[in-house]
Amino acid sequence: MRGLFIGRFQPLHLGHVAIMETALSEVDELVVGIGSAESSYTPTDPFSAGERMEMLLGCAMEYGWGGRLIPVPVRDVNRYSIWVDHVVSLVPKFDRVFSNNPLTSSLFRNAGFEVCSTKMVDRKHFSGTAIRDHMRTGGEWRRYVPRSTAELIEHHRWIERMTDIWDGDQ
Amino acid sequence: MRGLFIGRFQPLHLGHVAIMETALSEVDELVVGIGSAESSYTPTDPFSAGERMEMLLGCAMEYGWGGRLIPVPVRDVNRYSIWVDHVVSLVPKFDRVFSNNPLTSSLFRNAGFEVCSTKMVDRKHFSGTAIRDHMRTGGEWRRYVPRSTAELIEHHRWIERMTDIWDGDQ
Amino acid sequence: MRGLFIGRFQPLHLGHVAIMETALSEVDELVVGIGSAESSYTPTDPFSAGERMEMLLGCAMEYGWGGRLIPVPVRDVNRYSIWVDHVVSLVPKFDRVFSNNPLTSSLFRNAGFEVCSTKMVDRKHFSGTAIRDHMRTGGEWRRYVPRSTAELIEHHRWIERMTDIWDGDQ
Amino acid sequence: MRGLFIGRFQPLHLGHVAIMETALSEVDELVVGIGSAESSYTPTDPFSAGERMEMLLGCAMEYGWGGRLIPVPVRDVNRYSIWVDHVVSLVPKFDRVFSNNPLTSSLFRNAGFEVCSTKMVDRKHFSGTAIRDHMRTGGEWRRYVPRSTAELIEHHRWIERMTDIWDGDQ
Amino acid sequence: MRGLFIGRFQPLHLGHVAIMETALSEVDELVVGIGSAESSYTPTDPFSAGERMEMLLGCAMEYGWGGRLIPVPVRDVNRYSIWVDHVVSLVPKFDRVFSNNPLTSSLFRNAGFEVCSTKMVDRKHFSGTAIRDHMRTGGEWRRYVPRSTAELIEHHRWIERMTDIWDGDQ
Amino acid sequence: MRGLFIGRFQPLHLGHVAIMETALSEVDELVVGIGSAESSYTPTDPFSAGERMEMLLGCAMEYGWGGRLIPVPVRDVNRYSIWVDHVVSLVPKFDRVFSNNPLTSSLFRNAGFEVCSTKMVDRKHFSGTAIRDHMRTGGEWRRYVPRSTAELIEHHRWIERMTDIWDGDQ
Repeated sequence: MRGLFIGRFQPLHLGHVAIMETALSEVDELVVGIGSAESSYTPTDPFSAGERMEMLLGCAMEYGWGGRLIPVPVRDVNRYSIWVDHVVSLVPKFDRVFSNNPLTSSLFRNAGFEVCSTKMVDRKHFSGTAIRDHMRTGGEWRRYVPRSTAELIEHHRWIERMTDIWDGDQ
Repeated sequence: MRGLFIGRFQPLHLGHVAIMETALSEVDELVVGIGSAESSYTPTDPFSAGERMEMLLGCAMEYGWGGRLIPVPVRDVNRYSIWVDHVVSLVPKFDRVFSNNPLTSSLFRNAGFEVCSTKMVDRKHFSGTAIRDHMRTGGEWRRYVPRSTAELIEHHRWIERMTDIWDGDQ
Repeated sequence: MRGLFIGRFQPLHLGHVAIMETALSEVDELVVGIGSAESSYTPTDPFSAGERMEMLLGCAMEYGWGGRLIPVPVRDVNRYSIWVDHVVSLVPKFDRVFSNNPLTSSLFRNAGFEVCSTKMVDRKHFSGTAIRDHMRTGGEWRRYVPRSTAELIEHHRWIERMTDIWDGDQ
Repeated sequence: MRGLFIGRFQPLHLGHVAIMETALSEVDELVVGIGSAESSYTPTDPFSAGERMEMLLGCAMEYGWGGRLIPVPVRDVNRYSIWVDHVVSLVPKFDRVFSNNPLTSSLFRNAGFEVCSTKMVDRKHFSGTAIRDHMRTGGEWRRYVPRSTAELIEHHRWIERMTDIWDGDQ
Repeated sequence: MRGLFIGRFQPLHLGHVAIMETALSEVDELVVGIGSAESSYTPTDPFSAGERMEMLLGCAMEYGWGGRLIPVPVRDVNRYSIWVDHVVSLVPKFDRVFSNNPLTSSLFRNAGFEVCSTKMVDRKHFSGTAIRDHMRTGGEWRRYVPRSTAELIEHHRWIERMTDIWDGDQ
Repeated sequence: MRGLFIGRFQPLHLGHVAIMETALSEVDELVVGIGSAESSYTPTDPFSAGERMEMLLGCAMEYGWGGRLIPVPVRDVNRYSIWVDHVVSLVPKFDRVFSNNPLTSSLFRNAGFEVCSTKMVDRKHFSGTAIRDHMRTGGEWRRYVPRSTAELIEHHRWIERMTDIWDGDQ
């Protein structure tokens, strides 16, 4: 049995990990849609789809999910009326959708899919926006992301790139 | 070490398998770009990216490549001048490109990548065009594709869909 | 003689009706461009072009405008320099433009069209933004839209959908 | 009850009229999707969506279909996997699809719609390609199109424009 | 007084030079639109817009047209109905159009521009298609292009790139 | 030796002139990329690429830069990961990039280009935003732009157009 979970992963954080862990206790494989796949180098989307895929592959290794996680870049189409068909055409067949977004849930449910509404624990801290803020201000972003993700960010010096983006955005 | 191999996989066939096998003898993981990802339901591109991803996942299972194959849909941009950057932004970092297309080889080589030119054995038989022709005319397509791919095609009755496409295309 | 009037109709309201009524007193037929046609399921554009076309067809019935109203979806191109040609290529020939937007008026006037600047009465109440706010807060939205539109909204439970959109947007 | 029929109408011809006549004997209103809406001034698509809408409005008048025909421009998206949702989002709700294209029939049927496969009588003569050929060679194109369409073509001197297109295309 | 001339310049050849020479005898400055600007690395469009701009700048130098030639890349929009406005929005104001394409002439003339129909001498030899064929087959392409263009092609080894494209296209 | 400088030039102002003057003291020719080329008639992008090209050509004349300034429209692609290749494919070859934007600098530097970080003097006054504000409020915008630009703006009555845009935007 296969599940689907979609996120932007800017960056991958422990809130996502908790949802994926729950999902993997219910399905054999989890397709992970990397949303806004073609955005990168912007204040809200600093990482490319390929970089976010590296975060997910590293995380699967770290948490022992081996080949059970299937990450797939999904670009935005900015037309919700075709969103479900767009996703369906890009990823392998799935049986159940895990989502904490009411609109996504509703669109997939209307299209006939089984949807499990997931709750993200402590949204205030485990949010991409909050974590990117910590990154900008030198805060404690490491505690909110998987260890493997922190290592990637440090190894590639992505904080430096983010600083360039913020400065250019002023 | 990671390699990159790009194909259209309409459908996945044993020519692709031979290349991937060679590549996997040289690298630890192989990113497999699924080209023309947003095309489907046409005579030359009958299968969606998601369906082709299922072929690749089934093939990895059949050949015991476990988590070493990383399939990624890559949509066409129809601008070769940005093609390398487009691919690079969508897939995890790779060190070597496997390609039997002179233009692809040349574009990646100019961009500073190491390129291994692969030879496809017996291109006459192991070609998507030839195999789709066998499918249309009731020929022996099964002998040219992995067993797992043949099973997918039969299970989902994809030949029937292809017939609708051919009829609509006349 | 044919006129042209363009709006977003999110939703159709009595301010639009007043303009169309005036226009129909001057022209035989009125082409009604449904702007931002490909937007839907967003907080500012909850309804699809097809749904807005249903509002306009219902309204034409309710007000006895029979076959005199010709609704046509017009997608955004986000390039004002080609906007007039874009509209002209999609709708049947028209002789006069009805518009209360200075930029639209100016673009069509520069392109050689006769433009009637219409005044929307009481813009504060008869505005899509204000009416969508009433919908969100359980306010009196029904008094600002045609009866036929109100019936459509209730019959299809579109307020529920809008709630999903607002929640997903937070 | 509403039906849907999609064509390119380059130009509208008596084969289309026969199908629309059949459809209108079964449904109250017929939504007529004008396919490839954004193409025009090419050898295979000489007429703009707006011009083709005029042909359809003229034809509805000529055949006494009054307000029962609802023409809607539908641009190509070149992705069959999202085609049904694309159409659905642009046109008013419909209950039945009339189509003589196996792929269109199959896509709408898979999406849960009732599909009536229509037969076009004498496809050899009543085809856009054949009629455009008559136009180019000074042949008897008038006998294959509604009288109202022939008048539009002559009134607007569209054959002259087609000659420019053919010459420019050489 | 400014003129406009649009070509694809794949590559720039002496047929173009003759037209530009005529045009420059009538106008002070000539805007040269580089059509299909975003195409490159294909059999029919081997050179990028930037490379074609270099050919034009070199040619202006060679022929002593100094600052009188103003090359501007113009990407295809594939919608002739908006073509004139698209071009107009991208280039400096011009008073006269030089064109040997009947459709282009007709579109600009309908939009109110003065159009000079130019004749290309000896279209059989002075055509991009013919010259690219000479390049592929080792023929005498040099005699049909300006000396400065031949030098660019040789200096950048563009024939080698074209060979890669042709091989990859088989 | 050729340099590259990219700006939006909404409108061209003396801050840009200072940078171009510095650049032209170091290189023979300066390619000037006109960013967001396809935007116009909006509050932040009132002028079309063609109009901004006229400003640059007028300025080159005014400052005696003759044929040394090469303006090229560059449309946004909204994907920074392909930005460098996009620009490179559209403009003639250049050796050095002049930029005061940290992200642009970083992207070109990573792609192997030599980048000169320029400082804009007095950014508070010499900024497009500030100057457009002066234009809206009847302030002293003339003192911040080249004389030739001021003349263009007055000759074409562009302030009037900007007023239409602002009114339509409310």
